[in-house]
Amino acid sequence: MLSIVPSELAPGQAYRLLTSLVVPRPIAWVSSLGADGTPNLAPFSFFNAVAGSPATLMISVGQRQGRPKDTLRNIQETGEFVVHIVDENLSEKMILTSGEYPYDIDEIALAGLTTVPATEVRPARLAEALVAFECRETQLVPVLGSTYTMILGQILRIHLGEGLLRDNGLADASLIRPVARLGGDEYASLGPVYKMARPK
Amino acid sequence: MLSIVPSELAPGQAYRLLTSLVVPRPIAWVSSLGADGTPNLAPFSFFNAVAGSPATLMISVGQRQGRPKDTLRNIQETGEFVVHIVDENLSEKMILTSGEYPYDIDEIALAGLTTVPATEVRPARLAEALVAFECRETQLVPVLGSTYTMILGQILRIHLGEGLLRDNGLADASLIRPVARLGGDEYASLGPVYKMARPK
Repeated sequence: MLSIVPSELAPGQAYRLLTSLVVPRPIAWVSSLGADGTPNLAPFSFFNAVAGSPATLMISVGQRQGRPKDTLRNIQETGEFVVHIVDENLSEKMILTSGEYPYDIDEIALAGLTTVPATEVRPARLAEALVAFECRETQLVPVLGSTYTMILGQILRIHLGEGLLRDNGLADASLIRPVARLGGDEYASLGPVYKMARPK
Repeated sequence: MLSIVPSELAPGQAYRLLTSLVVPRPIAWVSSLGADGTPNLAPFSFFNAVAGSPATLMISVGQRQGRPKDTLRNIQETGEFVVHIVDENLSEKMILTSGEYPYDIDEIALAGLTTVPATEVRPARLAEALVAFECRETQLVPVLGSTYTMILGQILRIHLGEGLLRDNGLADASLIRPVARLGGDEYASLGPVYKMARPK
């Protein structure tokens, strides 16, 4: 086995290695609005559910050139956001929105996406996404010693494409076809889905 | 589109739906020790990296019958843990350790796994795992209004199987073959890995 002390690596190197080891990660494609109404759309993969009731999501967001990324700035200003799950059909548009654009660039228009109004919050929802979570920020938690902030949001409303919800109350991942985030520039599709039951 | 308000669902139903929508999730297989030295091993998929420097992981852990799960209790008591990534070869042993066993049951022995001493922390590391993170707890953050607690841990040392690290500083996911967690009893392998570059 290799043995590596991440604090002895350059920060960028530690980050890259970590992204290639904590896998596969889901992708949150986050729509938000600044206080001045400027829309933003950006993908994040330091993302997961953190509670079932109330249904709560977490996204950890870093800085860019010593300042909060636009998504964090917007949520600090307005407290609302919409998280979309990135599926195979949307991966190329997602990657377009991952560039480092000035604050006043609307990544939704840039990627040729269309929106519909959300029901509970002001930021727009992507019409093309099969899964969307309308969220209200409930906690902002700095990660100790780092430049990252965890944004926690309660899910106020879920939107889900017709035909994706099965009778057992679970959505069908093989129909959603979510993109898995790996390290560096790498992504993967899901292979076949299988079941394993917990011991009684 | 279906439109669902999760707070109007039964808590178990909201949890199940959420696990089928925030996908694919990585699996943290967590080794910990109680203050009395009792070992524990359990899988969690409300898990991700949350900072690159210092390299930091987050696991959100719920309760069982109104009390913290053994993993959270142990980390509250001793502040140390080892996170392993579950790969295809380990999935059946992982599911064995997901049962609800009494506190004094050693899931490592129960699943027929073997351990080696960790370098920086007291809980054991699984000899069979290709990727392991030795962690010290840095923050315990209750998720507002829920029974979940986010455990944050700084990664003190990474162990990685020989031949998995490429010259570009990234581990090769197609060699690790991590298991993806979906909803309910469902899991998936990764399909083919592909690259998408960020816009300049």
